[in-house]
Amino acid sequence: MNEDFMNCRAVGVVRSPFKERGDAPSQGRHTDAVSIIDVFPEYQEGLDGLKAGDDLFILCWFDRSDRTVLKTRRRGSENEPLRGVFSTRSPARPNPIALTLVKLVEVTDGTLRVRGLEALDNTPVLDIKPYSEGIDTPRET
Amino acid sequence: MNEDFMNCRAVGVVRSPFKERGDAPSQGRHTDAVSIIDVFPEYQEGLDGLKAGDDLFILCWFDRSDRTVLKTRRRGSENEPLRGVFSTRSPARPNPIALTLVKLVEVTDGTLRVRGLEALDNTPVLDIKPYSEGIDTPRET
Repeated sequence: MNEDFMNCRAVGVVRSPFKERGDAPSQGRHTDAVSIIDVFPEYQEGLDGLKAGDDLFILCWFDRSDRTVLKTRRRGSENEPLRGVFSTRSPARPNPIALTLVKLVEVTDGTLRVRGLEALDNTPVLDIKPYSEGIDTPRET
Repeated sequence: MNEDFMNCRAVGVVRSPFKERGDAPSQGRHTDAVSIIDVFPEYQEGLDGLKAGDDLFILCWFDRSDRTVLKTRRRGSENEPLRGVFSTRSPARPNPIALTLVKLVEVTDGTLRVRGLEALDNTPVLDIKPYSEGIDTPRET
């Protein structure tokens, strides 16, 4: 294992109506707002095969999150006990990689219009993965 | 955006029966093998709240993947045309972060036993997130 090489590259950036932390919903599922993902020219070839209507996991780097937090409470749950961040979807975690399932509304050149992303404006995008019911739903055992 | 700070930390490591590339199934869903995730002591507090039976997304850094690939074919699909990596789940991609949904079999101290992980032995683990049906299934529109 060589941590020196676990450096992420932004493959694109989010253009979102949410400019500040308080603007964004706690989960993208709670908004119908459309966000833009601008994929940088050097990575646009990787978009080949995507089409409107696709369900996509977007992995973002939440660059404004606190990476030192290991215990947290869910938003709006100030009376609940603290929980480990790995049992929550809190953006504050050792590697602030957010995972959000979105619907691809339109893809033109290097620009994706997606519904369901809660990321703040200017958030770096690390990866785009197609949702697959066969592997992304819980197994029985 | 400051890429200097997009460096990932391993919060743990996979102990797996799959030692070499050819050993691993293309998706963890295709195996019933149990893998171990050893979470490092400094991050174990973050596991609080996890319990056997939980469905968890595991984010791993596939440190043996080719990060320069933008077009690929699915394994066993050599006759199909090339596709952009963002429309596939290929491990070769600009940020080789694998996303795998597993079933937590047992958690003791800092060790998770999970079913459904296809990662090779010694693969760094970046994050553990609880699956949530409410946000991790496709939206209608």
